Amino acid sequence: MEEFAVNKVFRLLEPGPVVLVTTSFQGNMNVMTMGFHMMVQHEPPLIGAIIGPWDHSYTALKETGECVIAIPTAALAEKVVDIGNCSGRHTDKFATFGLTSSPAGEVEAPLIKECYANIECKVVDKTLANKYDLFILEAVKAWVDPKLEGQPTMHHKGDGTFSLDGKVINLQDRMVKWKQFRD
Amino acid sequence: MEEFAVNKVFRLLEPGPVVLVTTSFQGNMNVMTMGFHMMVQHEPPLIGAIIGPWDHSYTALKETGECVIAIPTAALAEKVVDIGNCSGRHTDKFATFGLTSSPAGEVEAPLIKECYANIECKVVDKTLANKYDLFILEAVKAWVDPKLEGQPTMHHKGDGTFSLDGKVINLQDRMVKWKQFRD
Repeated sequence: MEEFAVNKVFRLLEPGPVVLVTTSFQGNMNVMTMGFHMMVQHEPPLIGAIIGPWDHSYTALKETGECVIAIPTAALAEKVVDIGNCSGRHTDKFATFGLTSSPAGEVEAPLIKECYANIECKVVDKTLANKYDLFILEAVKAWVDPKLEGQPTMHHKGDGTFSLDGKVINLQDRMVKWKQFRD
Repeated sequence: MEEFAVNKVFRLLEPGPVVLVTTSFQGNMNVMTMGFHMMVQHEPPLIGAIIGPWDHSYTALKETGECVIAIPTAALAEKVVDIGNCSGRHTDKFATFGLTSSPAGEVEAPLIKECYANIECKVVDKTLANKYDLFILEAVKAWVDPKLEGQPTMHHKGDGTFSLDGKVINLQDRMVKWKQFRD
């Protein structure tokens, strides 16, 4: 994996891929699937994420204030769904799903080697965590695997079906007001 | 346009399409492009949206507490980018971009006839509006145009390039824990 400029993570998350989220708490790593997330701010890079008490990762995130958002390609589709349909309370998901953890640089939560991108995050605001399970995260370091670049990511249609990335169109010439985001 | 069950709007937004947002304030309709949004809760359906003071729509949204989130297909790609690169302060965007407004059912903000889906929304929480320009919206009514069903939506890669929806994969059989969302 190569380091990816942390102030460019919006390029990875704004398209809305389904992601995995890892945590590490009291010596136990866990990973969950997350479909409800968004970029909140370009710089410093803030991310909104919905992680609730129904997720075993919720306690780890609240207690440690750290996680990694990992972006899988479609090659991991079945695992992504299965990870979201069992609980870390009963399952060692890294072992069960054959995922390879790797130490992160700034957080205790692990990177996932099989994913295209990994974004190390720290919780910076829990104001709406009790009401909506909404955490504001700051991306503090990011990584991509250049070997997986261009592989399709998955967009969850909410019901167990996913649209994969298809054709890419380039309209950068028309992006005049916001041209700083092209560079 | 046909009415779409408002408690199923997560199926439209969870995939992360770039969207248009309409407002109506003091007799003026406006439309903007939005890439930073997420589902917050399935039911009642809550949506997080980042709309800031740099957006002319910001004042309208704050004052009226209402908007419509419209989901364009790739047929509108150039217009979607151009709408995001000019301001309603200087431009009648509906006229300039040849969009057809249509009255909504529950809000003053208009629907956009050319879009695949339209979601009527009311602001329900502004707690983080000052700090992060983050509005929590509740979807109160939704519409889709069946003629446009299956047309690709656009996922903004943050830099003026977009990935269009490609192949759809169905993994509903594996969605066992969350099977209520398949139905």
